[in-house]
Amino acid sequence: MEVFIEPIGRLINEFAKLPGVGKKTAQRYAYRVINMTEGEARAFADAILDAKRKVRFCKICGNFSEEDICAVCASREGKQICVVKEPKDAIALERLHAFKGVYHVLHGVIDPMNGVTPNDIRVRELLERVQRGGVEEVIMATNPDVEGEATAMYIAKLLKPLGVKVTRLSRGIPIGGELEYTDDVTLERALVERKEL
Amino acid sequence: MEVFIEPIGRLINEFAKLPGVGKKTAQRYAYRVINMTEGEARAFADAILDAKRKVRFCKICGNFSEEDICAVCASREGKQICVVKEPKDAIALERLHAFKGVYHVLHGVIDPMNGVTPNDIRVRELLERVQRGGVEEVIMATNPDVEGEATAMYIAKLLKPLGVKVTRLSRGIPIGGELEYTDDVTLERALVERKEL
Repeated sequence: MEVFIEPIGRLINEFAKLPGVGKKTAQRYAYRVINMTEGEARAFADAILDAKRKVRFCKICGNFSEEDICAVCASREGKQICVVKEPKDAIALERLHAFKGVYHVLHGVIDPMNGVTPNDIRVRELLERVQRGGVEEVIMATNPDVEGEATAMYIAKLLKPLGVKVTRLSRGIPIGGELEYTDDVTLERALVERKEL
Repeated sequence: MEVFIEPIGRLINEFAKLPGVGKKTAQRYAYRVINMTEGEARAFADAILDAKRKVRFCKICGNFSEEDICAVCASREGKQICVVKEPKDAIALERLHAFKGVYHVLHGVIDPMNGVTPNDIRVRELLERVQRGGVEEVIMATNPDVEGEATAMYIAKLLKPLGVKVTRLSRGIPIGGELEYTDDVTLERALVERKEL
């Protein structure tokens, strides 16, 4: 005899597909759903379907958008373009309310080991944006890992001949971090990229 | 300008209603949904609605069931009844494959501070089951907290005049636990309920 009846077992399996969710956590989520009202469960299911159906990608920057052109691209100057790997990276930066330029979401990084070439991500679209003119600076904000660095270098090389300034987010010891517990690669980077006081 | 577009923000809010899910985790779940195929999102939404619609409670024991009578009640002898607070407790016990009797889910415990009286939980139904005869033992398996203990004591008092054996799950130091790190109440209980070797 199965421990879970079918509809509960199935819901647990669905929750277990979410990132970082194991069987135990999936169970807790499923119990919560069963204790919801019919209306609450309906709102939850609708939110899932709506997010999937209504969320598209901005035709200019590739970020999440309900319209053809996202609110950021529609309302801001394009002098500075911040290049990120994924929409969630743009959202993380946007949360700071510190950057007033626009974004360009690559939807991936160059990763030959996994068969991702420059043609598989939105590099060409970025070059076209810069070629159309009016761009003064491109900020490479891909992750500071091997693929992110390689992608930033590759794109910088393509952009420089176009006469645009290309910068990279600084890397180093996280604010509040401790030297002792900082990994060697980060520490070395912090030393190499030290700033004059 | 909102950081999240409406359908994403709404989905994040829905995920954040799940137990132990904060904003950050809800975001990660929402991103996962957006990256699902249309079919996957549909399957997820359907599982939520189905769990809510198809899961009912067994008319005998009160556990989750798709039918009027659950598979456990339909197939097992009722000589031993294990009394639990919630369906998930019955599922936890069932997972052991060690208990061959049936369950009785109270759907709560007596908690006067929060206005839960014996009439608000399935006490009467339990008495009726025992009165119908054939029951030899009732195992009280409510949680070992104040309300769970009080509920177990209350029900035991009602059951004893009916000539049925009433037992309680043993309490003590968890297997693999260490004396040093066991809380005082548990340690005292382990001492009081010590067993002869």
